[in-house]
Amino acid sequence: MLRMAEPIIHHRHPEFRAIFKRVNANLKYLFQTEQPVVTLACSGTGGVESTFVSLFSPGDTVVAVNGGKFGERWVNMPRTFGLQAVEVKTEWGKAPSEGQIVAALRSHPDAKAVYLVHSETSTGTATDIKTLAQVIRGNSKALVCVDGITAIGAHEMRFDDWGIDVCVTGSQKGLMIPPGLAFVALSARALEAMEHSTLPKFYLDLRKAVRSHQADDTPWTPAISLVIGVDAALEMIRAEGIENIWKRHERLARALRKGIEALGMKLFSDSPSFAVTPVWLPEKIEWKRFNGLIKEKYGITIAGGQEQYAGKIFRVSHLGYYDELDMMSVLSALEMALADCGYNFDLGAGLRAAETYFATC
Amino acid sequence: MLRMAEPIIHHRHPEFRAIFKRVNANLKYLFQTEQPVVTLACSGTGGVESTFVSLFSPGDTVVAVNGGKFGERWVNMPRTFGLQAVEVKTEWGKAPSEGQIVAALRSHPDAKAVYLVHSETSTGTATDIKTLAQVIRGNSKALVCVDGITAIGAHEMRFDDWGIDVCVTGSQKGLMIPPGLAFVALSARALEAMEHSTLPKFYLDLRKAVRSHQADDTPWTPAISLVIGVDAALEMIRAEGIENIWKRHERLARALRKGIEALGMKLFSDSPSFAVTPVWLPEKIEWKRFNGLIKEKYGITIAGGQEQYAGKIFRVSHLGYYDELDMMSVLSALEMALADCGYNFDLGAGLRAAETYFATC
Repeated sequence: MLRMAEPIIHHRHPEFRAIFKRVNANLKYLFQTEQPVVTLACSGTGGVESTFVSLFSPGDTVVAVNGGKFGERWVNMPRTFGLQAVEVKTEWGKAPSEGQIVAALRSHPDAKAVYLVHSETSTGTATDIKTLAQVIRGNSKALVCVDGITAIGAHEMRFDDWGIDVCVTGSQKGLMIPPGLAFVALSARALEAMEHSTLPKFYLDLRKAVRSHQADDTPWTPAISLVIGVDAALEMIRAEGIENIWKRHERLARALRKGIEALGMKLFSDSPSFAVTPVWLPEKIEWKRFNGLIKEKYGITIAGGQEQYAGKIFRVSHLGYYDELDMMSVLSALEMALADCGYNFDLGAGLRAAETYFATC
Repeated sequence: MLRMAEPIIHHRHPEFRAIFKRVNANLKYLFQTEQPVVTLACSGTGGVESTFVSLFSPGDTVVAVNGGKFGERWVNMPRTFGLQAVEVKTEWGKAPSEGQIVAALRSHPDAKAVYLVHSETSTGTATDIKTLAQVIRGNSKALVCVDGITAIGAHEMRFDDWGIDVCVTGSQKGLMIPPGLAFVALSARALEAMEHSTLPKFYLDLRKAVRSHQADDTPWTPAISLVIGVDAALEMIRAEGIENIWKRHERLARALRKGIEALGMKLFSDSPSFAVTPVWLPEKIEWKRFNGLIKEKYGITIAGGQEQYAGKIFRVSHLGYYDELDMMSVLSALEMALADCGYNFDLGAGLRAAETYFATC
């Protein structure tokens, strides 16, 4: 990513305009859409906020699924702006069911939107967006809004074919570059909703962003070096092919799970994400010691559990430019640290299971 | 700025925490304050928005000086959020007078704040913040709020000594790194005002930012590579010394002006900025041809006038890492392009005047 360190070109310069034009075209490929995908200079949280303030009006009802830290944020955020947020709560590690969504829409037929989290990072749980989008479209006029922040680039996303109205992602996840940019894909129905929205907005006003986007421009100074980095990342994604990238993430995730189960550990999620794998920490293994060994002795970074699951689960991320040997390295570090902690298992069993999966799938 | 291209460290990692702690300390030095300076992942416009939504409540009155494109934005923005914005309009190229500020405060004794633009980029005009801050403090309880986006690093700013309450800057100006970060300095009075603000906010909520800042953290994912770049820039600024940097900018600006006047051209602004110098384009010189020569033949980038001054003025930027020879290069390019355009002047007169200034001041 040395391109991000080159001297800065001005954002009104034709050279930057050409880069931004290519980025805009490649973002459509990433989301599999022919509709506009706008770029904002903010984190993913700012990207999701732009959708609430730009599409709705005070008092509007939105349904939001809360199955973890991020889902919880998308319940609190609209309430902050005077929207009625109907919370569909799922247990951590479980995806929302069709029945839950249908029930919420039946009791709130006025709902203007349903917000779903494609891959909930705090719990490593994936939601079946394709099916739930059909359910929402079949039962209501609500917009289908997706937090794709850790899913885009790991999970299949066909924005147009699946009838998604809003999907947000960030630069630091599947795009593999530093944080600081959010991307928002918008359907014709979403653009229409923007025309009627009365919530006040300025910096995160998607109408302004869409208008500038038509001229391959941004309303405010863009984060130029990050856009240049995204350009390089998107060209890599095009070269590998988005369907190959989805398959690669699924394959790595499934191999890792096989390895983890072969070590006698249990997966935390009923519907595990292809971006991050959450695992129950075996009994008697102390998180701090285990994590310290993994990090200091074996040089691998994993994440712990959050809130009520702190010290109880750990999470392995595999979103971005990972390959088969990266999964083997992680599994090996897990095995050696487990052995250091006195965990009773067949050394090498995880590696063998993962290799067997790779050899046969 | 190769440090920005290094592999990304996670924002919860101790290594990043140590960098951010140093950045936070050095930002205080940059603004000359002992009070908190928070870092937001957005452009300067987002930074200014954070102050409106975090400090005020619907119906509050704020006075805003409009002497150009940015001042105009700070009149429109608060109105978007339901604030009463009292516009103090100045002619482009003129700074607001003490009398204008006093008059606005007399007719709006309930004003909660006065927004000033330290260096208005569209007109290259500087405002005397030190004097106007005294005037505002002497005549009202209004908070003194400064758009320092193109001024910080070029113009003297003594946040604490001058009694400033809010000052915003961006990463791509005096800090010399790519855009994507905003910095907001906040006085005790500003922190107090935040406690009573009822405007809805989430991503740009300064209360959350200040709370996280106390632990050298951010509420949302920070733009890590840009923070790392800012760290390097701030260390350079500390090494040169902020007072030396102010003096360098003033010296370069004054030498450039001498050179421009020696060519028989007129300065556009009554109160020219030390960050950007605006000049009336001589009669019969056609902007497109002149700019094309400067850019293509001589490799120098200058900016044109905006709105009613398009094609009538040009602007030379000298904010950041410029030195004496950079000013000589710009003047030389201007002279040669003027000669190409058939402008009648004594070739070398501008260069001589600038060198004379450098030799004696």
